[in-house]
Amino acid sequence: MFGQIFENVRRKSPLIHSITNYVTVNDCANMLLACGGSPIMADDPDDAVEITAICGGLNINIGTLNQRTIPAMLAAGKRANELGHPVSLDPVGAGASRLRTDTALQLLREVKFTVIRGNISEIKTLASGSGTTKGVDADVADKVTEENLDDAAAFVGEFARRTGAVAAVTGAIDIVGDGERTFCIRNGHPMMGAVTGTGCQLSALAAAFVTANPDRPLEAAAAAVCAMGLCGEIAHRRLTGMDGNSSYRNYIIDAMYRLTPAELEKGARYEMR
Amino acid sequence: MFGQIFENVRRKSPLIHSITNYVTVNDCANMLLACGGSPIMADDPDDAVEITAICGGLNINIGTLNQRTIPAMLAAGKRANELGHPVSLDPVGAGASRLRTDTALQLLREVKFTVIRGNISEIKTLASGSGTTKGVDADVADKVTEENLDDAAAFVGEFARRTGAVAAVTGAIDIVGDGERTFCIRNGHPMMGAVTGTGCQLSALAAAFVTANPDRPLEAAAAAVCAMGLCGEIAHRRLTGMDGNSSYRNYIIDAMYRLTPAELEKGARYEMR
Amino acid sequence: MFGQIFENVRRKSPLIHSITNYVTVNDCANMLLACGGSPIMADDPDDAVEITAICGGLNINIGTLNQRTIPAMLAAGKRANELGHPVSLDPVGAGASRLRTDTALQLLREVKFTVIRGNISEIKTLASGSGTTKGVDADVADKVTEENLDDAAAFVGEFARRTGAVAAVTGAIDIVGDGERTFCIRNGHPMMGAVTGTGCQLSALAAAFVTANPDRPLEAAAAAVCAMGLCGEIAHRRLTGMDGNSSYRNYIIDAMYRLTPAELEKGARYEMR
Repeated sequence: MFGQIFENVRRKSPLIHSITNYVTVNDCANMLLACGGSPIMADDPDDAVEITAICGGLNINIGTLNQRTIPAMLAAGKRANELGHPVSLDPVGAGASRLRTDTALQLLREVKFTVIRGNISEIKTLASGSGTTKGVDADVADKVTEENLDDAAAFVGEFARRTGAVAAVTGAIDIVGDGERTFCIRNGHPMMGAVTGTGCQLSALAAAFVTANPDRPLEAAAAAVCAMGLCGEIAHRRLTGMDGNSSYRNYIIDAMYRLTPAELEKGARYEMR
Repeated sequence: MFGQIFENVRRKSPLIHSITNYVTVNDCANMLLACGGSPIMADDPDDAVEITAICGGLNINIGTLNQRTIPAMLAAGKRANELGHPVSLDPVGAGASRLRTDTALQLLREVKFTVIRGNISEIKTLASGSGTTKGVDADVADKVTEENLDDAAAFVGEFARRTGAVAAVTGAIDIVGDGERTFCIRNGHPMMGAVTGTGCQLSALAAAFVTANPDRPLEAAAAAVCAMGLCGEIAHRRLTGMDGNSSYRNYIIDAMYRLTPAELEKGARYEMR
Repeated sequence: MFGQIFENVRRKSPLIHSITNYVTVNDCANMLLACGGSPIMADDPDDAVEITAICGGLNINIGTLNQRTIPAMLAAGKRANELGHPVSLDPVGAGASRLRTDTALQLLREVKFTVIRGNISEIKTLASGSGTTKGVDADVADKVTEENLDDAAAFVGEFARRTGAVAAVTGAIDIVGDGERTFCIRNGHPMMGAVTGTGCQLSALAAAFVTANPDRPLEAAAAAVCAMGLCGEIAHRRLTGMDGNSSYRNYIIDAMYRLTPAELEKGARYEMR
């Protein structure tokens, strides 16, 4: 199934508009190209609305947001909704500041999202309206483990039901749910946390995958999560004794460029709950 | 000839001010360093005008433009004109939104450009005042092929005459003309399209090349186009079975860092029309 | 001593807030991760103040500053001072424009810095209130050499006494002083100047090192300078005949990821004056 979903991304080459932070934007663009999609970025409100209209999907990421980009996110999100385009949300650092939390909550009220991808602390913040996010990384107290996996999956499902979006909570174990079904995914490598923006890249990927597979947003988002994790595994095997996190960053994107649908089908490690 | 032009870049180390998008700005800076130039970036209007004055050339790129950077582009462009500094324009996504098209047209009216580099769809938009650009990539219907090359070269020449700039339209075949003479260039590799910002990097390079060769802007722009394409070829030969578009990005910049004037002289593949 | 300082960075994993330019921000984030720290970036004034409060240290870099980010820098700097958090300043291009010079001087008046890191031209500009910086690189006339090293060390010490900050002036020979003691450091490689943002990365590192070693800011800043230079050496030894400045960028960050406290202790090359 994931093979077919990835095949659709490669075949349709969805044009994805990302309103995203300037820290990891270049890697997001190259990752979108690596998966077979096509990137474009705009963040002036007028420009963002028009660019949204010529694209297939929209990816909103609130890292380094500011007073100019917030209206752009809201206006572009509403335009994408009008046009029936998929929209993904990456609530980077929700819980770490009022501006980020408030903006994420406003986006959730005013825009209908297809996928929301974050770490567990960010998603808990969105669910409760407040949080204890430690910067852009998940709080240790929140971490998803084998012990609390059932509870975490139930929480993700509930969040998906409330928002009407596929919720993708990523960490050591990834949980992707739509409120009815849940994928628990075990692809990936811990060293991905030493590369800035692997989460941002995944959110951009998720936008591309759901855009190319509009009838299967849950499976498409889960396939994107598996693909990213699998590329993290492949890239890690490639590391030499001199390579560190910067080469790893390149190798992960390289792995996505090389990944075939059959390899994704075979390498995806998940169970349904 | 191109060897001597490149030698001048290496020897003079032109300081180039780029007002450019935040997606590919880091690669533009490293590419300018790789060719022997020196980069600086500013986009606050006051700062941009002053920084322009201490530089040798100015590179304006309208990707991710906004209400702050548009006045900076206009003011810096006019200041560069007053000082007789070369100015390059990269009309990223002209035709994809009104803001981009209008800004590019306003820049053309108010600033005298030395070089304008874009894909065929972007340049057609500037020539006609409207367009059908598909995001930041050229529209398939516009593509330059062996069959329509004469027509395309004539179009580029006409655009160069009207704007008074050297026009560089890049794609599978690159066309660089000043209205009197035209270079048709066959360097490059299709995989360069899978790396974000190779066009932006080329526009920055073109600014460095014309700045170091003020008396020969046509040849300097053509040399930059050949150099970029040649580095795409050299880098492609270096790819292993695990490398993808991210390593390719690095290898292209690496190739420029290593490229010698003699290698450019020998590897440039072009004909005059 | 430097081994213990680096060990503290790895063990405490300081969360560093960087308000920095968009040219090199991604490399700064990956370098912070490579040294064992954790990065976060915000530049909206409201957001920047709150994010500062949840971090251990603050890194202010004035490249690509604008009317939105200047208030963010001032407000975040004051907040960090109130909280007793270390703050580093990288006055990129001070002397190259009035906006940069004035902003750097205003920051010096209104914020108490723990470390100020720049090239000699930038620091001379801050010391005198005006300068002749050539873009973002040091002016040739200013360069620190074996011949003028005593004078340069005296100048750095005087600047440190006046500002109350550890002053780190980097170039072919690096000088780090607090007004009482001075480290003259000979790590590094000239090719680091061909990679954009090695200075920015060092300033981010310095913030992480002083944050993890609050009682020894002079030694911590000197250790960061040695570590960056040592990684430049290690990375340079790794270069193949095809590698250039882009792979070098990756290798420097990789080297920091791999560097052990014992290797830093052994590889640091400095003398006290």
